[in-house]
Amino acid sequence: MKADQIKTLLRKVQRGDLPVEDAVQRLRYMPYEDLGFAKIDGHRPLVKGFPEVILCEGKTTSQICKIVDVMAERGSDVLGTRAAEDVYEAVSARHPSCNYHREARIILMQKKPPSGKGSILVVTGGTSDIPVAEEAAVTARAMGNNVERIYDVGVAGLHRLLDHRKPLARARVIIAVAGMEGALASVVGGLVSCPVVAVPTSCGYGANFQGLSALLAMLNSCASGVAVVNIDNGFGAGFFASLVNRAVR
Amino acid sequence: MKADQIKTLLRKVQRGDLPVEDAVQRLRYMPYEDLGFAKIDGHRPLVKGFPEVILCEGKTTSQICKIVDVMAERGSDVLGTRAAEDVYEAVSARHPSCNYHREARIILMQKKPPSGKGSILVVTGGTSDIPVAEEAAVTARAMGNNVERIYDVGVAGLHRLLDHRKPLARARVIIAVAGMEGALASVVGGLVSCPVVAVPTSCGYGANFQGLSALLAMLNSCASGVAVVNIDNGFGAGFFASLVNRAVR
Amino acid sequence: MKADQIKTLLRKVQRGDLPVEDAVQRLRYMPYEDLGFAKIDGHRPLVKGFPEVILCEGKTTSQICKIVDVMAERGSDVLGTRAAEDVYEAVSARHPSCNYHREARIILMQKKPPSGKGSILVVTGGTSDIPVAEEAAVTARAMGNNVERIYDVGVAGLHRLLDHRKPLARARVIIAVAGMEGALASVVGGLVSCPVVAVPTSCGYGANFQGLSALLAMLNSCASGVAVVNIDNGFGAGFFASLVNRAVR
Amino acid sequence: MKADQIKTLLRKVQRGDLPVEDAVQRLRYMPYEDLGFAKIDGHRPLVKGFPEVILCEGKTTSQICKIVDVMAERGSDVLGTRAAEDVYEAVSARHPSCNYHREARIILMQKKPPSGKGSILVVTGGTSDIPVAEEAAVTARAMGNNVERIYDVGVAGLHRLLDHRKPLARARVIIAVAGMEGALASVVGGLVSCPVVAVPTSCGYGANFQGLSALLAMLNSCASGVAVVNIDNGFGAGFFASLVNRAVR
Amino acid sequence: MKADQIKTLLRKVQRGDLPVEDAVQRLRYMPYEDLGFAKIDGHRPLVKGFPEVILCEGKTTSQICKIVDVMAERGSDVLGTRAAEDVYEAVSARHPSCNYHREARIILMQKKPPSGKGSILVVTGGTSDIPVAEEAAVTARAMGNNVERIYDVGVAGLHRLLDHRKPLARARVIIAVAGMEGALASVVGGLVSCPVVAVPTSCGYGANFQGLSALLAMLNSCASGVAVVNIDNGFGAGFFASLVNRAVR
Amino acid sequence: MKADQIKTLLRKVQRGDLPVEDAVQRLRYMPYEDLGFAKIDGHRPLVKGFPEVILCEGKTTSQICKIVDVMAERGSDVLGTRAAEDVYEAVSARHPSCNYHREARIILMQKKPPSGKGSILVVTGGTSDIPVAEEAAVTARAMGNNVERIYDVGVAGLHRLLDHRKPLARARVIIAVAGMEGALASVVGGLVSCPVVAVPTSCGYGANFQGLSALLAMLNSCASGVAVVNIDNGFGAGFFASLVNRAVR
Amino acid sequence: MKADQIKTLLRKVQRGDLPVEDAVQRLRYMPYEDLGFAKIDGHRPLVKGFPEVILCEGKTTSQICKIVDVMAERGSDVLGTRAAEDVYEAVSARHPSCNYHREARIILMQKKPPSGKGSILVVTGGTSDIPVAEEAAVTARAMGNNVERIYDVGVAGLHRLLDHRKPLARARVIIAVAGMEGALASVVGGLVSCPVVAVPTSCGYGANFQGLSALLAMLNSCASGVAVVNIDNGFGAGFFASLVNRAVR
Amino acid sequence: MKADQIKTLLRKVQRGDLPVEDAVQRLRYMPYEDLGFAKIDGHRPLVKGFPEVILCEGKTTSQICKIVDVMAERGSDVLGTRAAEDVYEAVSARHPSCNYHREARIILMQKKPPSGKGSILVVTGGTSDIPVAEEAAVTARAMGNNVERIYDVGVAGLHRLLDHRKPLARARVIIAVAGMEGALASVVGGLVSCPVVAVPTSCGYGANFQGLSALLAMLNSCASGVAVVNIDNGFGAGFFASLVNRAVR
Repeated sequence: MKADQIKTLLRKVQRGDLPVEDAVQRLRYMPYEDLGFAKIDGHRPLVKGFPEVILCEGKTTSQICKIVDVMAERGSDVLGTRAAEDVYEAVSARHPSCNYHREARIILMQKKPPSGKGSILVVTGGTSDIPVAEEAAVTARAMGNNVERIYDVGVAGLHRLLDHRKPLARARVIIAVAGMEGALASVVGGLVSCPVVAVPTSCGYGANFQGLSALLAMLNSCASGVAVVNIDNGFGAGFFASLVNRAVR
Repeated sequence: MKADQIKTLLRKVQRGDLPVEDAVQRLRYMPYEDLGFAKIDGHRPLVKGFPEVILCEGKTTSQICKIVDVMAERGSDVLGTRAAEDVYEAVSARHPSCNYHREARIILMQKKPPSGKGSILVVTGGTSDIPVAEEAAVTARAMGNNVERIYDVGVAGLHRLLDHRKPLARARVIIAVAGMEGALASVVGGLVSCPVVAVPTSCGYGANFQGLSALLAMLNSCASGVAVVNIDNGFGAGFFASLVNRAVR
Repeated sequence: MKADQIKTLLRKVQRGDLPVEDAVQRLRYMPYEDLGFAKIDGHRPLVKGFPEVILCEGKTTSQICKIVDVMAERGSDVLGTRAAEDVYEAVSARHPSCNYHREARIILMQKKPPSGKGSILVVTGGTSDIPVAEEAAVTARAMGNNVERIYDVGVAGLHRLLDHRKPLARARVIIAVAGMEGALASVVGGLVSCPVVAVPTSCGYGANFQGLSALLAMLNSCASGVAVVNIDNGFGAGFFASLVNRAVR
Repeated sequence: MKADQIKTLLRKVQRGDLPVEDAVQRLRYMPYEDLGFAKIDGHRPLVKGFPEVILCEGKTTSQICKIVDVMAERGSDVLGTRAAEDVYEAVSARHPSCNYHREARIILMQKKPPSGKGSILVVTGGTSDIPVAEEAAVTARAMGNNVERIYDVGVAGLHRLLDHRKPLARARVIIAVAGMEGALASVVGGLVSCPVVAVPTSCGYGANFQGLSALLAMLNSCASGVAVVNIDNGFGAGFFASLVNRAVR
Repeated sequence: MKADQIKTLLRKVQRGDLPVEDAVQRLRYMPYEDLGFAKIDGHRPLVKGFPEVILCEGKTTSQICKIVDVMAERGSDVLGTRAAEDVYEAVSARHPSCNYHREARIILMQKKPPSGKGSILVVTGGTSDIPVAEEAAVTARAMGNNVERIYDVGVAGLHRLLDHRKPLARARVIIAVAGMEGALASVVGGLVSCPVVAVPTSCGYGANFQGLSALLAMLNSCASGVAVVNIDNGFGAGFFASLVNRAVR
Repeated sequence: MKADQIKTLLRKVQRGDLPVEDAVQRLRYMPYEDLGFAKIDGHRPLVKGFPEVILCEGKTTSQICKIVDVMAERGSDVLGTRAAEDVYEAVSARHPSCNYHREARIILMQKKPPSGKGSILVVTGGTSDIPVAEEAAVTARAMGNNVERIYDVGVAGLHRLLDHRKPLARARVIIAVAGMEGALASVVGGLVSCPVVAVPTSCGYGANFQGLSALLAMLNSCASGVAVVNIDNGFGAGFFASLVNRAVR
Repeated sequence: MKADQIKTLLRKVQRGDLPVEDAVQRLRYMPYEDLGFAKIDGHRPLVKGFPEVILCEGKTTSQICKIVDVMAERGSDVLGTRAAEDVYEAVSARHPSCNYHREARIILMQKKPPSGKGSILVVTGGTSDIPVAEEAAVTARAMGNNVERIYDVGVAGLHRLLDHRKPLARARVIIAVAGMEGALASVVGGLVSCPVVAVPTSCGYGANFQGLSALLAMLNSCASGVAVVNIDNGFGAGFFASLVNRAVR
Repeated sequence: MKADQIKTLLRKVQRGDLPVEDAVQRLRYMPYEDLGFAKIDGHRPLVKGFPEVILCEGKTTSQICKIVDVMAERGSDVLGTRAAEDVYEAVSARHPSCNYHREARIILMQKKPPSGKGSILVVTGGTSDIPVAEEAAVTARAMGNNVERIYDVGVAGLHRLLDHRKPLARARVIIAVAGMEGALASVVGGLVSCPVVAVPTSCGYGANFQGLSALLAMLNSCASGVAVVNIDNGFGAGFFASLVNRAVR
């Protein structure tokens, strides 16, 4: 919905041709750009307070480029997740200002970095969980949060975790990322009094069944205060944690 | 840890017999009552801000009664979940002040009801989801939150949900409870800008596989800002939402 | 069964050498061409009203070419699904009149395009679901239906779907294609009064388990009037919808 | 929404106080009765053409009675599925005109039976599948269809099925109900040219896994023209078939 | 166990140095060649009546060659299953007399082809099932059976199957190979009075789950007289059918 | 199809009014009795050589009685599986000649016991597997086979099994019944040269998952010559073994 | 095998009628009592060093009594697991010396309690895990081990576990019993240097799937030195731990 | 924690500035090297008695090299599991003293090979299980145990296993490695009186489901004295067996 469309609409209201309520409805529900293969929400920032997100996996490079073009034209910030390196190269050829967080596989195009606030802490059980953790951390930072990281503090060596009681205690939200038996979420959940967002990862093999073991463990956490997102869904955890932290002011 | 034990400990600190740090450790980590079959945390309220919770399912009535006795002696508030009616009768015979929320299957013993604040909204897809929703709502209320309820607003009749846009918009956290295809979480998540805690229920039959369909659907929600707890875990959702809402001040 | 074979058979009936009933049986049940590795039904068009379909996946290029040759010789229309690009190239080298719908991965060889009638609407939850949706749409068009498409109207942005109430209302059958949590089928099913054929896709990751989440969700739809085909089975949905629409006259 | 409410609304339109479109919206989307635990759609008949359906399983007898009361007061027809015998007794005590289809476990309260049309054929693989088949048949009959039944014609004795070629050929829609290996759907689908709605049942044992074997088999049917509903969901099949048959006129 | 070893042993028996029973035991249980990574049974032919079989999958080419060398030296016949083309090339470089059944992926080294007897019939549901069927057919032929093949007679076109009643009726054992919904086993089982060995294949996609749908369907066959082997296990079916046919004399 | 019907038919053939082939078809495919809820095959004995079998589970006592009545009137032998004690009582009240094999849960009504031949051996891993084994043994005996039993010879005490080498060696078919890890089938399969029909049972707990562990183990048997029937399907194994043994003459 | 049988055998050896080796074989492999439905190993104590164990679940009370009778006559010690109260009553009526461990559901008949040695420590995550833990503890005690118990030290309150560092450090084997997310095994495994035998329990609900979550978590433990037994298999853990501890001398 | 750090700490204790207990805590829980992406435990050898282990899978080559560098600087022994050949090449370029066990995929850097003791026996069912078995064997040898190997002694040819009764009898711990039906663990467990550590492998196909069949079979072993590790987890079995054997002195 471009500016002239909005003007036309508002003039109708002025003239009494359009009830105020109807105008609200139209403004709220119609203003997306239709690319045929994708509908881009221009008003979603009003609803969620964050830029539009593109899940790059499953889309062609050409589709992604067109979506970014439209967003860029509108002046939106863009966060592209699960973006392979060649996707980044295609996008950055047209939008040189965008950055690529390689480990997180995120393309980020953000005009002014938001001022950080309240702390979100991202912890991982192992080294292999880091890519998922980085997806969460980069997302949370892009959404305007201060982010701390503590990696490789799995429960098989409890002292490594217990050494970081201070950052654990001061965090407003904790994102616990772990594969294998996923026990990190329960142990962290038992140590802190803030909400813990658990991210099971597909790290492991055999009876891990592509992350099922960690997923089920986290869902069955005996610690209260733990909620779970999809396997390997670092973005989802970062976004959810941002909603929680944003409410805190 | 009884009063005289605490005095003994503090006198040692006074006399320099016990380093301050050690005393902190002891106070922080040791003070639970050991019943042999259960360890009761007296200090957990300091960590989480809420009373001790008893998951009654899987415990004998006699074990539950003994745990409540110890808590009552200490003056703690008690929240017993998944409590069958006969468990309530046994407990209330010894502690007449406790209440039973029949639909939620919760025994609640709470001296002064906490003053309500910030709104937590509980919505369900159907009528059969209400017991789980009530477990969430009673828990959240006991943790000191204002709670609103909108029941039977499943996605097969969208207008029923869309009619409640106002409570949806003013909630700080929403708990979405649904069985069958669990689509409620995604639809609500797309309408609001606060965190949504999704609770899959085992309501349904056949390819529902005891809640698996709703669980997987909620974990795969295409709406950002949704996190999930265990199937039928109303308590977990109420508790998690309370942690989120408490942080909001 | 070639013309001369049919004549021989009919003459036997004329001469009283073959009972009428037996002749019917032979005409009904025997007339397929036997290639050893495949039996081609020449009479199926009489049963179903549509051309023979080849599921290319799992067959060698050489087998596919031979099947198409026989069909072409008989003057049949051919619809080859799940056809890789190199299969199309091999087939079109021998049958230049055939077309390739790349996104749908369909090879189509059709002498006179059937006149369109009654509307079948294909909707998708996301952009990644489009290949499956195209398989359905191309199939339905080849079977003689008018086809409309609305893509990327997933339930996380309900207004995008609600904006299309008119095509939703006028469709005689709707094919709802969605991966992840598959909620689209339920939401569409609640908005319309025509049958909805739901196609779960394998789009997603983690607890999606290759389409299981969408499949279970759609089978458990709380909206009445929804039936489901196999994961990623766009062809099956297009064919089923064609049967429904054909009956409508 | 009672009569006087509707009048008030229409007078506003007459006076020009309410845009026609808005009035439509209100009539379409708002008129449900709120019982707290359930929202009853008064206008759903306008959308689907059939009475409101109550899934009794998972609701208390008291809840069901209250829902029926409200519907009866409005003059609606009622179809209650998965109704245990004692639920029927409680309902019929208040509404003596309702009938109980014991094998189908359906409570039916219908003022004037709809005139039958076009044929829906219900077939089962075995005797144990009959309760699910009856749920489908009673539903379809209540929705105004002529219904034929052929039971116990499983694929292990093909001649039993092949003997019924005439009813198979004249049906507009076929509902194929089968447990165990669920092959009936494929065999029927290969014999007819109308849509086949497949209902897997949980009949069987062992590697049947509560209907999983039949469900997967039906989803993987090699016959085109088969769509599937949830395990044991006779109602869903009857309803879906009714939508298909209704469109045929 | 070489000839001279056997002589030594028998002379001990002759001299009364070795009890007859012990000699039997030694002959029966000890004579395998130990390659370290594999133990080769020289006496198994006495037990089973067939040559040693090598499951090539999971073994290195070098291991396979060494096993074949030892067998060849002993004069055994060799049947190597799941052998990739390059394995065949390596083996045939050393043993030029061996043959490769490409579609069946079998390496066969057999001095004098056994005289065929009693008929084993191999049927498939589709064209994609042929490689598995060929594995069964080549195995059965190598074990000394006459083998007939009828391919692509799936249940969606019953007449294609019913046309072959004669070979169905004269077979002593039938091997039914099918993927997708695996209904072929039940339909064949209902038509014949000989044992049916069912082989589920992984042909299909989506809710086929790599052959699970066909496997469960076949295990739940409503036709008596059906037993099942592992998914894609053509060899196992051919071997089992050979044991059954061998007993028939 | 009663005697006079058959006469009428044959006279038509005699008079040349009915082609021989047609008469065969009618005799072969039409003669079942239709009870509405069940179709009873009178000619199946011609096909399979055994009496009609009733799977009692899932049928009402009244349905079972009516089916037995019809069969008795025709003079058929009857084998009712999975028959609860009260079903037997109802049936025997009307047909005093029938017997009840309590452990096998089989009702048997058989005029003259068939003369036994060739040996079928039934072995079990444990004591809990006996009911399933008895279902197999009683079925096989009723089908005219000599049956031997060796129970509780699980692989954890190999010598118990190895002690029975003689009956193992002389059996023509072996039915191996085992729950838990189901290893009995592989061990027996490695000791003998006759076909082994494996029956997984649901005996066990935990990761047994109602027989899944034994089922998967038996399907993956490293011993050749093993085929598998459904979990707890003693009847199916007895029937299949009878078909194999019958062919041996 | 009674004394006179043994004498007869040994005299044969003396006379040179039986080779020594054969005698060894007979003594080793034949001496079990055959009850038809069960084979009782008299020599197993020689192999394992512990009395015969009866898994009562799945056996009839009458079968259990007969097995105990035979064992008692031989003077064996008896350990009956998963024994319901009425089984105990039937057994104790005939063998008054036996004891019933109600929580462990174990019947124990042991002449002289073995002298305790080396410590086996049993820990549980919660109170509901105690019955399984008791099964392990009673078994281990009966096998001649000293047993310590620490119950309800789940990972959500780490300090409860860390308080027991001394018993953790001095144990030679630890049995970790936990349901839900099963994290106890990993945390204990990271704290100690002795082997940890993990027992998943079916305690929990929803996505616990009858113990699957704990089972998978324990199998995927990131702590080395953890091995797992079946869900709820307290006996198996106690027995395995006894074998380990016995080796330590 | 370097030497000078340790001295500083100990001097504080000497001076009475640091309580002994605190010093123990610090030494026990803090001394790991933080690489950001990985925390390296220097003190773990004190806890477990073995060198630090690196699970190479899931880590980048660069991360692995840095971890090895730190360990080498500290003088630790290093065992890297699941190391691809190119990882070994990168590591050995910097640390030429390290060895690569190709079949086991283990990188081993060990200054003085420990003197072997007490025997650990590794057995496999087939040739394809050898890589997993080698992982176990190399691990156990590196941990200071004598290791024996018997490969390809699966239960389908029992005599191959029974021929090795002597090594079976003298082993202190046995590691049984098997895929497919995993029966080896039960059979071995029934023959010996030492603990058996079972390793399911993913060898097999079809209903093996990547090792699930062997895993479930081993968990359900009817032989007592068997515990299980993760699918393909040779390292875990070797480590666990080492803990058991170490305790034996």
